[in-house]
Amino acid sequence: MTDRVAVVGIGHAKFGKRTDATIRELAHEAATPALEDAKLTATEIDASVVGIAGDVFAAQGSPGAVVHDYVGMGSKPSFRVEAACATGSAGVRTAWSLIRAGLAQVVLVVGAETMTHVGTPMATEWMARAGDTRWEYPYGITFPGFYALMATRHMHEFGTSRMQLSMVSVKSHKYGAMNPYAHLQKEVSLEEAMKSVPICQPLNLYDCCLISDGAAAVVMASEERAKKITDTPVWLRGLGAGSDTMMINERPSLVGLAATKVAAEHAYKMATVTPGDIDVACTHDCFSIAEIMSYEDLGFCKKGEGGKFIEEGQSYVGGKVPVNVDGGLKSKGHPLGATGVSMTYEIVKQLRGEAGKRQVAGAEVGLTHNVGETGQYCFVHVYKR
Amino acid sequence: MTDRVAVVGIGHAKFGKRTDATIRELAHEAATPALEDAKLTATEIDASVVGIAGDVFAAQGSPGAVVHDYVGMGSKPSFRVEAACATGSAGVRTAWSLIRAGLAQVVLVVGAETMTHVGTPMATEWMARAGDTRWEYPYGITFPGFYALMATRHMHEFGTSRMQLSMVSVKSHKYGAMNPYAHLQKEVSLEEAMKSVPICQPLNLYDCCLISDGAAAVVMASEERAKKITDTPVWLRGLGAGSDTMMINERPSLVGLAATKVAAEHAYKMATVTPGDIDVACTHDCFSIAEIMSYEDLGFCKKGEGGKFIEEGQSYVGGKVPVNVDGGLKSKGHPLGATGVSMTYEIVKQLRGEAGKRQVAGAEVGLTHNVGETGQYCFVHVYKR
Repeated sequence: MTDRVAVVGIGHAKFGKRTDATIRELAHEAATPALEDAKLTATEIDASVVGIAGDVFAAQGSPGAVVHDYVGMGSKPSFRVEAACATGSAGVRTAWSLIRAGLAQVVLVVGAETMTHVGTPMATEWMARAGDTRWEYPYGITFPGFYALMATRHMHEFGTSRMQLSMVSVKSHKYGAMNPYAHLQKEVSLEEAMKSVPICQPLNLYDCCLISDGAAAVVMASEERAKKITDTPVWLRGLGAGSDTMMINERPSLVGLAATKVAAEHAYKMATVTPGDIDVACTHDCFSIAEIMSYEDLGFCKKGEGGKFIEEGQSYVGGKVPVNVDGGLKSKGHPLGATGVSMTYEIVKQLRGEAGKRQVAGAEVGLTHNVGETGQYCFVHVYKR
Repeated sequence: MTDRVAVVGIGHAKFGKRTDATIRELAHEAATPALEDAKLTATEIDASVVGIAGDVFAAQGSPGAVVHDYVGMGSKPSFRVEAACATGSAGVRTAWSLIRAGLAQVVLVVGAETMTHVGTPMATEWMARAGDTRWEYPYGITFPGFYALMATRHMHEFGTSRMQLSMVSVKSHKYGAMNPYAHLQKEVSLEEAMKSVPICQPLNLYDCCLISDGAAAVVMASEERAKKITDTPVWLRGLGAGSDTMMINERPSLVGLAATKVAAEHAYKMATVTPGDIDVACTHDCFSIAEIMSYEDLGFCKKGEGGKFIEEGQSYVGGKVPVNVDGGLKSKGHPLGATGVSMTYEIVKQLRGEAGKRQVAGAEVGLTHNVGETGQYCFVHVYKR
């Protein structure tokens, strides 16, 4: 039985409005460099796990099969996983499990999504259908609405300000401008972010992540194989997962995600680390308020102090815990199925010391935090060199 | 690290045209008896895996979250798996892996689908979109068409007859009439089956499985926990999986499914059994020709002799390998995500000796064979008492 499981290869497609590529082509654009990075051919991989959130976005029923075939996996085992916006991390969790369980030694995880082709209003509409289609969606609420409720309550309880929300976006864009795979590679000023058009009060345009196309891929391997494949394995040492009620009106509090706390507790315990040990993190910033809540729910600061955390610059490189220094969902983009795998990509780059201008010096412990919907799914993973 | 993993609880919703129930209610109808069978409450389960093939059929984005919540799993880890018509078996494989990997001790697998609400023509259309939507679907082929091509070639190469195809249906309906959960609980005569309306030459109505709503659930546990939970654990000892090209025109042969052979080889080897050891099997009879090919590809008979196998009654109770004595997809129904879990349900019933009138006396080794699309996914599982 294998002891540890490592990421031994990573690849990333350019996120953006990719009218030039279908979902299979985006997957190939990410899987090919991941295999090259691991110095493996597709025939040397034991199984694939494909993460795609929406059949409708892919315009393909059972879309994992198309990707599996197109990246050259042939007769190897495969299936698709889905956990809404946390789909990619469900893929990483599944690959880790397949390897630890002994069903495979080397697994390719591909996360992909095509979204821009339907336009932003329709994409927002389709994502809203991941809310409860019996009891929430028919009344008109969309995801900006869900998170606006949380932001409103967070501002009410803790005095979190519009400026602090906008500061999250300014940070994301600062780092996104340094990430060649990011959708929007441009910095924004605090004034621009604060004065951007309202989407759903109190959230403005710059509080909301992008609708993007994209893909990311990682190759994961058992300890025995990993050591043969690479000198720079990055070990996935802590895996936590949590859920929450389907409808947010059933939750006792809106100022945080209970699923994040559950997932983080599992992951920290399993990896024998504390929040203070995390050198760099990718957290789920689908909306600015989500990143602020993530600081708190992951234990980087106390509940209610997330606004202060960004205002003090603690989530910048050089701060207490650099967060989303790849640009995050806000600037890099959020092709649903790709996001969790892209987070893994970034943490591996950081722990290998290959993150270039956005490198966190000496990073040894990294964390990914990937939320589906409003916490119906949450996966927290802790990586070590 | 856990050694073996067992099924310790099973539950089944009534398959059929279930206009009385939503997908969450069907899932509940299956999960509740599964938990009762294991004498566990939902709070004692560590994680859920939900198998649902189509968002569109469920009329719910990310439909696993709704099921997870409604069956009472609260904050526990979950995600959805999908492998087209083999979705349920991907769920069982995932649960086995999570347990073996040590991420959970007891896992609930729920497979569910609602299909009849869209009507048979639209359901057929939507399923066709699991064919390649770039290179197959636009040219009008649907799943009866794919399997009709295979049937035509099988008849051409091996002399398989229309009568033999119909005999598969007669057997399915004989046993389906004894299964209280089956959609169509009625026997059909060979004459009725042979004279039923053509669907896609050479396949008639009775060669094609039903469009059904339904759900099934199983509770799986580590060896340590299983022994405390039940005196009749059924151990999942062999797991095999295979894939094939996305487009069937790229395959060297149409008279069998290469993915089945790959998956069976893995499963037999892992379980240290041969085809001759299988006492009872549920195989993927989405079309009559698919069951005939399954006899061959699983090694119950030689390639080309599947027609003779059914004609000689070898797949009846008392024959060489009783197959689909729960009625199969043909008579029991095929709610996509539920099917693989329902196969597991039946094999556990058989190995526990609880299958009543359709019991295979003294069954000790059982097999499930679940195909997605035309073999883009295939999972073969071997169970032992």
